[in-house]
Amino acid sequence: MYRAPVEDIAFTLKHVAGMKSALDAGRFGDLGEDLVDAVLGEAGRFATEEVAPLYKIGDEHGAVLRDAAVTMPPGWKELYRRWIDGGWNALSGPEDYGGQALPTMLGVAALEMWNSAAMAFGIGPTLTMGAVEALDKHASEALKAKYLAKLVSGEWMGTMNLTEPQAGSDLAALRARAEPAGDGTYRIFGQKIFITYGEHDFTDNIIHLVLARLPDAPAGTRGISLFLVPKFFVNDDGSLGARNDVFCSGLEHKLGIHASPTCTMIYGDGFRGATPGAIGWLIGEENKGLACMFTMMNNARLAVGMQGVAVAEAATQKAIAYANERRQGKAADYAGAGMAPIVHHPDVQRNLLTMKALTQTARAISYSCAHAIDMARVSDGDQAAHWRDRANLLTPLAKAFSTDVGVEVASLGVQVHGGMGFIEETGAAAFYRDARIAPIYEGTNGIQAIDLVTRKLPLGGGEHVHGFIGELAGAANAVRTSNLQGFGRTADALDAALGDLTQATRFLQKLSADGRMEEALAGATPYLRLISLAAGGAYLARGALADQDRIALCRFFAENLLGEARALRERVIDGAESLAAAGKTLISA
Amino acid sequence: MYRAPVEDIAFTLKHVAGMKSALDAGRFGDLGEDLVDAVLGEAGRFATEEVAPLYKIGDEHGAVLRDAAVTMPPGWKELYRRWIDGGWNALSGPEDYGGQALPTMLGVAALEMWNSAAMAFGIGPTLTMGAVEALDKHASEALKAKYLAKLVSGEWMGTMNLTEPQAGSDLAALRARAEPAGDGTYRIFGQKIFITYGEHDFTDNIIHLVLARLPDAPAGTRGISLFLVPKFFVNDDGSLGARNDVFCSGLEHKLGIHASPTCTMIYGDGFRGATPGAIGWLIGEENKGLACMFTMMNNARLAVGMQGVAVAEAATQKAIAYANERRQGKAADYAGAGMAPIVHHPDVQRNLLTMKALTQTARAISYSCAHAIDMARVSDGDQAAHWRDRANLLTPLAKAFSTDVGVEVASLGVQVHGGMGFIEETGAAAFYRDARIAPIYEGTNGIQAIDLVTRKLPLGGGEHVHGFIGELAGAANAVRTSNLQGFGRTADALDAALGDLTQATRFLQKLSADGRMEEALAGATPYLRLISLAAGGAYLARGALADQDRIALCRFFAENLLGEARALRERVIDGAESLAAAGKTLISA
Repeated sequence: MYRAPVEDIAFTLKHVAGMKSALDAGRFGDLGEDLVDAVLGEAGRFATEEVAPLYKIGDEHGAVLRDAAVTMPPGWKELYRRWIDGGWNALSGPEDYGGQALPTMLGVAALEMWNSAAMAFGIGPTLTMGAVEALDKHASEALKAKYLAKLVSGEWMGTMNLTEPQAGSDLAALRARAEPAGDGTYRIFGQKIFITYGEHDFTDNIIHLVLARLPDAPAGTRGISLFLVPKFFVNDDGSLGARNDVFCSGLEHKLGIHASPTCTMIYGDGFRGATPGAIGWLIGEENKGLACMFTMMNNARLAVGMQGVAVAEAATQKAIAYANERRQGKAADYAGAGMAPIVHHPDVQRNLLTMKALTQTARAISYSCAHAIDMARVSDGDQAAHWRDRANLLTPLAKAFSTDVGVEVASLGVQVHGGMGFIEETGAAAFYRDARIAPIYEGTNGIQAIDLVTRKLPLGGGEHVHGFIGELAGAANAVRTSNLQGFGRTADALDAALGDLTQATRFLQKLSADGRMEEALAGATPYLRLISLAAGGAYLARGALADQDRIALCRFFAENLLGEARALRERVIDGAESLAAAGKTLISA
Repeated sequence: MYRAPVEDIAFTLKHVAGMKSALDAGRFGDLGEDLVDAVLGEAGRFATEEVAPLYKIGDEHGAVLRDAAVTMPPGWKELYRRWIDGGWNALSGPEDYGGQALPTMLGVAALEMWNSAAMAFGIGPTLTMGAVEALDKHASEALKAKYLAKLVSGEWMGTMNLTEPQAGSDLAALRARAEPAGDGTYRIFGQKIFITYGEHDFTDNIIHLVLARLPDAPAGTRGISLFLVPKFFVNDDGSLGARNDVFCSGLEHKLGIHASPTCTMIYGDGFRGATPGAIGWLIGEENKGLACMFTMMNNARLAVGMQGVAVAEAATQKAIAYANERRQGKAADYAGAGMAPIVHHPDVQRNLLTMKALTQTARAISYSCAHAIDMARVSDGDQAAHWRDRANLLTPLAKAFSTDVGVEVASLGVQVHGGMGFIEETGAAAFYRDARIAPIYEGTNGIQAIDLVTRKLPLGGGEHVHGFIGELAGAANAVRTSNLQGFGRTADALDAALGDLTQATRFLQKLSADGRMEEALAGATPYLRLISLAAGGAYLARGALADQDRIALCRFFAENLLGEARALRERVIDGAESLAAAGKTLISA
């Protein structure tokens, strides 16, 4: 079973993603390494001892809907209670409302651990944290006073209500309606689907954040507003009042994360005889809902990226443990009695090292993104702008690359288990099932790639990304000039990959400048993987320079996995024409 | 829902894999294109209209064990009856026992369609056909007379009993015992696991082929014998007698192919008060069981490869259909009203084209393997040896590449469906679940790669593979010298990939010659993918030269997917040292 890799996580935070130098420079005030280590250690203990043991029961029981109420799997409600009692929900919440305001880096590190232990558990509080952020940034003081403290503590949970049957990736197609009631409130009507933790028994109240259109709002995404719609109204003394006109009409039967209730939510349908119309309060300005929602979504994207890292870590641990136990055949380097543990077979090692290296690259990218968010918050002026750009650049990588890695690694994990991997009781298959949602939700990975190419490559007049590549080249150079043994051809491989990345980047920037967007979009997905692999390789090198025990894996990545960069560059630069030609044949007459 | 792609299949058989020239040369006697087309058409109709509609009920109900008896999902027993009544089980069975003795190519083409329609259905008869082949080649006339006709017709089904808890990939560890009873029969004792269709209600009798050790047999794989153990004894008049001492003690709870019963079989435990000892009859010679079993296994490997092709085809069809229906966003080339069908988005096209191209390459490789088997059967002397070598060379590619493709394509299929892909009702997730077993069973794909490098590269004194590469280069050359439009850089890409393949091949052959097997094994998996991609590209080119409508996809493959070849070559040639260095860190103290 999963054991939180606290040392690996702490190392990556400090020595790869930049936390140590920021701490040493006093950028996070009083926060020091001792507190960081204590928080990580305690989170690791909770994830390992409390969350992980409830994973299987969650997968097997799932969430159950009856009479518009969702019952969570046995023991999960109590787990959630212990979790919020431990203060974990408040880790990075605003201090004014009882939060500990710790850096995002610590938040995502803890998030990785909750998700490794049980992804269906980890996703719930992620939504609450998104709601906290959106309210903190955009809501009126009155709304904040009423709702924020309890969302920060986790006494209540929050949801994000975007998707409708006809509006998934394309929010412009959204139809839910909001009518002003004349008293400062609104009546919300409509159906929302795929609402994660839309209904459950963890908390007494659930605070829904809902996108809807006002009457006469402009068409498209500029006519969308954001509303707060509580499940139960909240009296002025903080006690709960009557039920609002919102209910869960269905739960999806999903491939994985069975314990995460994925709800169809009905607003304003006269639930249990109510006067139709769910009562909602506007967050931010009318028709500016999407901007508010983006506050939630950007963080949610990094959080979903952590799910990719998390499931990859859990799958890797399980596969390495199994490969050290399971014995089959002989191996040249195994001198023991009987059959060799399969970890001695080169082909099994290849799978395991691929899993381990991809997991570590995805983690390094995601933590670096969190670091940029933190640095933007504690910086001013140009520095703040620089770090904001960096966070924006890294967010699609953290989301898409990490979640692709989650699926790849979980699939390899099943393979390492052989026939046992296909048996549900083993647990390897559950990671493979759970992992598959992360490349889809919070903006599909295709959408992330498009975001990267169309919105992130232009940052800083197109120069921010080249600055980033320059930093990565610094790591390659440091490998070359170090006197450390065992790097093999790492520096050459990194240089080659970074050269490929630079070429592909300039090519896409030129296409955009020339208005040839279709061609740029055709190369978006391979470009996202290219920049992620190159960055990941440089991050592994940075880690290996700080800790020689990491050199071997860094070299394996450079010499076995980084070669894909060239093919990716070719796909970006030379692939669009053939894609367009063949793509036409897919379209039905 | 799945519609059998009869035209695509017929085209690939005839114009890519070599059937047309063989038919034209009269190599299959009276068999002509008209009969081929008729058989394919009828199989396609049966798969589309009869099998596919029962897929979902099979996935949802699964097979159910109660009191040692397995009940198949509703309607499946009747489906199987219609299927054998249609003569489908007898398609490639021996004529002496009522089979139609049609070429393996037709058999695997039909098999693809059964598996696309419902993989859990397709796998059952695959085992029966393996049993038929093993009995036909190795059993005594008495055993053949008693069992073969009913196995050929499908009135009874057969099983393969190899795996035991401690003996999976490594059959040397097998422990099941067989004791001579003195009357020409044997008493079999032991537990077998992962026995596909070990128990079910399709047929009145089940004929188990079981590997076991005789007393005092040599250790390892040279002390294994093969036995026929019927569920019910068969009287001399063909009627069924008493129950044998074999029963199903458990069904696995699996990730996918839920309707395929995966059984734990107990031999000789005194089932229902019987005198302990399942009665079995020796097939072939004592201690030569593995050779007999290899007859079954080689065909089973190609058959499992067809499952990879099959699930990839089904997933691709579903994704293309969905992408033409589902509307989100705008697209440059879509002038219609409202949102564009997502098939117009370049990123979606990339996913769909990747799915389509990989499916077609896997199909071409697998059919070419079947063609080689057919040609070996109808040839003599050197020609027969040549085609046997070719079949042997292509078998690990057909098995491993196709099943890897099955998983990759099914995963992309989920992605194309967005959020709907994660919902079980949609059906895309079921392909992703089903596909995952095929890289594992019948020899994991790692084992296939090792087989390729250690046993297949040395064929013909190491020259057979180079002859094969030379043929592939012929296709590249034909593209270069053709006057057809639209191939883009296809010829260059093929030449480059074939150059990479030649280098990697010679490198591995040299390592083997030098006895550096560990290093060769480290490169086995990337080598298998390299040779498969290069061969697949050449096969697509061959198809495109015969049918210009196929040029666009061939070019997409060459310009977008074939670039991986170089990275794979590097992994083969330069990857072993870093793998060995990092691999050590995986081993527990």
